[in-house]
Amino acid sequence: MMTVLRLTALTAPRVYDGLIGRCAGPLTHLARSLSGMTVPQIDEEVAKLLQLKLQLGGDEGKHVFVLKTPKGTRDYNPKQMAIRDKVFKTIINCFKRHGAETLDTPVFELKETLTGKYGEDSKLIYDLKDQGGELLALRYDLTVPFARFLAMNKITNIKRYHIAKVYRRDNPAMTRGRYREFYQCDFDIAGQYDPMIPDAECLKIVYEILSELELGEFLIKVNDRRILDGMFDVCGVPQEQFRTICSSVDKLDKVSWEEVKNEIVKEKGLTEEVADQIGEYVNIKAGGSDLAEKLLQDPRLSKSKAAVAGLTDIKLLFSYLELFQTTDKVVFDLSLARGLDYYTGVIYEAILTQAGVAPVPAPKDANGSAGDEGPVNVGSVAGGGRYDGLVGMFDPKGRKVPCVGVSIGIERIFSIVEQKAEASAEKVRTTETQVLVASAQKNLLEERLKLTSELWNAGIKVEVLYKRNPKLLSQLQHCEDTGIPLVAILGEQELRDGVVKLRNVANREEVDVSRADLVEEIRKRTSES
Amino acid sequence: MMTVLRLTALTAPRVYDGLIGRCAGPLTHLARSLSGMTVPQIDEEVAKLLQLKLQLGGDEGKHVFVLKTPKGTRDYNPKQMAIRDKVFKTIINCFKRHGAETLDTPVFELKETLTGKYGEDSKLIYDLKDQGGELLALRYDLTVPFARFLAMNKITNIKRYHIAKVYRRDNPAMTRGRYREFYQCDFDIAGQYDPMIPDAECLKIVYEILSELELGEFLIKVNDRRILDGMFDVCGVPQEQFRTICSSVDKLDKVSWEEVKNEIVKEKGLTEEVADQIGEYVNIKAGGSDLAEKLLQDPRLSKSKAAVAGLTDIKLLFSYLELFQTTDKVVFDLSLARGLDYYTGVIYEAILTQAGVAPVPAPKDANGSAGDEGPVNVGSVAGGGRYDGLVGMFDPKGRKVPCVGVSIGIERIFSIVEQKAEASAEKVRTTETQVLVASAQKNLLEERLKLTSELWNAGIKVEVLYKRNPKLLSQLQHCEDTGIPLVAILGEQELRDGVVKLRNVANREEVDVSRADLVEEIRKRTSES
Repeated sequence: MMTVLRLTALTAPRVYDGLIGRCAGPLTHLARSLSGMTVPQIDEEVAKLLQLKLQLGGDEGKHVFVLKTPKGTRDYNPKQMAIRDKVFKTIINCFKRHGAETLDTPVFELKETLTGKYGEDSKLIYDLKDQGGELLALRYDLTVPFARFLAMNKITNIKRYHIAKVYRRDNPAMTRGRYREFYQCDFDIAGQYDPMIPDAECLKIVYEILSELELGEFLIKVNDRRILDGMFDVCGVPQEQFRTICSSVDKLDKVSWEEVKNEIVKEKGLTEEVADQIGEYVNIKAGGSDLAEKLLQDPRLSKSKAAVAGLTDIKLLFSYLELFQTTDKVVFDLSLARGLDYYTGVIYEAILTQAGVAPVPAPKDANGSAGDEGPVNVGSVAGGGRYDGLVGMFDPKGRKVPCVGVSIGIERIFSIVEQKAEASAEKVRTTETQVLVASAQKNLLEERLKLTSELWNAGIKVEVLYKRNPKLLSQLQHCEDTGIPLVAILGEQELRDGVVKLRNVANREEVDVSRADLVEEIRKRTSES
Repeated sequence: MMTVLRLTALTAPRVYDGLIGRCAGPLTHLARSLSGMTVPQIDEEVAKLLQLKLQLGGDEGKHVFVLKTPKGTRDYNPKQMAIRDKVFKTIINCFKRHGAETLDTPVFELKETLTGKYGEDSKLIYDLKDQGGELLALRYDLTVPFARFLAMNKITNIKRYHIAKVYRRDNPAMTRGRYREFYQCDFDIAGQYDPMIPDAECLKIVYEILSELELGEFLIKVNDRRILDGMFDVCGVPQEQFRTICSSVDKLDKVSWEEVKNEIVKEKGLTEEVADQIGEYVNIKAGGSDLAEKLLQDPRLSKSKAAVAGLTDIKLLFSYLELFQTTDKVVFDLSLARGLDYYTGVIYEAILTQAGVAPVPAPKDANGSAGDEGPVNVGSVAGGGRYDGLVGMFDPKGRKVPCVGVSIGIERIFSIVEQKAEASAEKVRTTETQVLVASAQKNLLEERLKLTSELWNAGIKVEVLYKRNPKLLSQLQHCEDTGIPLVAILGEQELRDGVVKLRNVANREEVDVSRADLVEEIRKRTSES
């Protein structure tokens, strides 16, 4: 298929005049050869144009080296890493408690693998430069690589978690935890099973994780794509517009119904009447199993096979959630739509509802640019659903593997936990060092290194300052700064006596311990910490 | 600067004829407008050409969807992940034992951040496509991002580890553990300290990790860039050729001196005499502190200030390694050169020397293509050195932060550990599930889910089959397959009695346990595993 390439008149801005003059020769030459090109030849020309661009001075025209991470990304410093590891540990423990294995996939996939999976969001995919060979793109989520993995390895059932970074060229809002590079923590169950049992387990997992992380009150909204489709159908939406109207409805958590209606009518071209009928459904107050029962009696919805199937499953789901003691936080909400194309059944999303998340003044982000205005509003912190068709899209014979899963939006959670840590007085340790080997006297470096090595070999976590003759005070200060609880002090006298002075940093108590007993004594003293 | 763009006559291969005909119009139009372009305009044209290329059908000319991971990459399945996690745990424990913090950086950096750091290897960097905004590239190692982080945050001393994936568009050799996407495990010490103390700790770390992983015999070669430079100097190599001759010498672990000499003379243009003089040094048998002492007496080397400084430090290093009890595996080897540009002092590399690594028939790799021929030859498994100038390259005022570090080449280690695991009979568990909740009778799904939920809430790792009425045999089989040690069996009778039949999968012993005692009993039985 050919699209028309629109060309505008090109005029060189003043600043490039000199350079352009020097380029004119080869470029004219290049231009003459362009018609009738093949793919490899186009590749070559592209490489040349890009090289030329670099010579002209990149995007800015003038070289100014900026010391920063790329837009929408950040480094994690040791303190942030300590918090991150703690959050991950809670999540991984939960995934393992539910019997999940883990796997990993490459950070990039063949471009084709990602094509046609994300609807309107495809424009946010990061492509790699064509440097010869395969066309690649950074993964946009962990679900599509998972489906590719299942199809490639002909796996028909698995329960796995995957914690890894994904990439979206979205508008970053770093203080709200919205990044271009961010972690997802995914848990998915693939396999042909009896309805709603794995789906209920996914919701149980969200419930457990959000409870254990102590992020405040939360709510898990549940709906089903089949109910949405049935509803659109009985309201008179043409089938080919189901997904795009879904995208509109999905905005209801951020904007008013009036605005969504406006989009449905003005942008998507449906009539006022159709929009109003949709409005009647999506504005129904969220409920539980009883709402599903009520809608099954709805004279119009009950005519849609899809809606009835979805509503019946919602009822079944709630019966399992009851057994899992999670119904206090789960609501059936007809206005939940979710953006992604690939969902086929139940969908869900968890939001934090507590205003208790402290509104803090927007700090500057790591790159020095001002953050977003306003209080922390992290929005959805987990989401997922059933996608029974995705694996089949990769299988050469189209064999389907039903899947359901959930993704924990961990960056948003980090930003809350980080702020809580900053607000609290508690000091976050970034190392696990148990003891510092020190000396009060000069010329004992060799003795310090020897003892340090002995302790390392015994599995003790030890540091030693990298100075020939450090002051005792700076050695003690290092312990204070980094939270090392013990100091093993060597001196001429201790060496003669075959002992080490073991000092408790917190209470400054010192006691002589024989070299032979030192390892055991350190273990004993640090085992409870 | 302008380079001349060479253009060759372009002829369209037969297969594209039809398409080309349809492209001719717009391309001719495009061609006409190319001379006198500015950077944004070039961008636009590039985008159009790439789009056109997509329409022509990508690299292959015809769309065939291939179900694979990108060239040089692989998925980790759950079994591989279990092995990977075990190896990581050993390495992280060692890093923590040495008092390191951890940090993380984005997977991509501004292209400029990587420019001018890797010498001849820069061509292996993965660039991201210019989609508007910053020019980005995937990280090539963890050292340059670390230096960027230090300069950006004005950190002058830190001991950190970083375990993350890096990217190189190299020729993959997957069965030998050479990938395009691979993990590095880096440990670095930044700060102004007394000479060779942090350097010795890095070597101690390599020694500990390679010992603990039980990979067989290994050897750590040590040299110093200043010794190499001094040696090149006294042999008559012009200073501007130090680095490129270094690259030639670096090949000595793979090819003979004759071949290296050939390269030095024929490709790099030095005289036979100069090459022969270099040969006399690099062919000296590796030694220890004594060799450093001997070379300090060498009438020519002793005239080079750089060489003397390097040799003196090597002697000091060995004295510390003696205290660390690591000299049995460390040799001073004048032929060790290392490829990267940024090293300024001591350099080192660890190799596995034991033929004991079983030569296995080359397996097919994950993508189904045949692997490399021959036995497993993993080569270097760790390397590093001192780079005192790198942070200064990023600091706006050029302030230097001396650094020394080591990188563990973990993929090569994985491939050995994986092969060892496959060769052994030991079964690798991929989950940690302690108990399966099962039933022998029908219609007990709700009771099973309820008990499962109770156990989850108590922190027990539990699975339950997602079937209304699974057969007892298939429930027991699932335990056998995945190594679950216990089954909690529910039946009408057990429910009436308020007990659960707890079955030991290994010896098939069953015992009734009251519901109240169940959690404690499961904990007791699985605590030793």
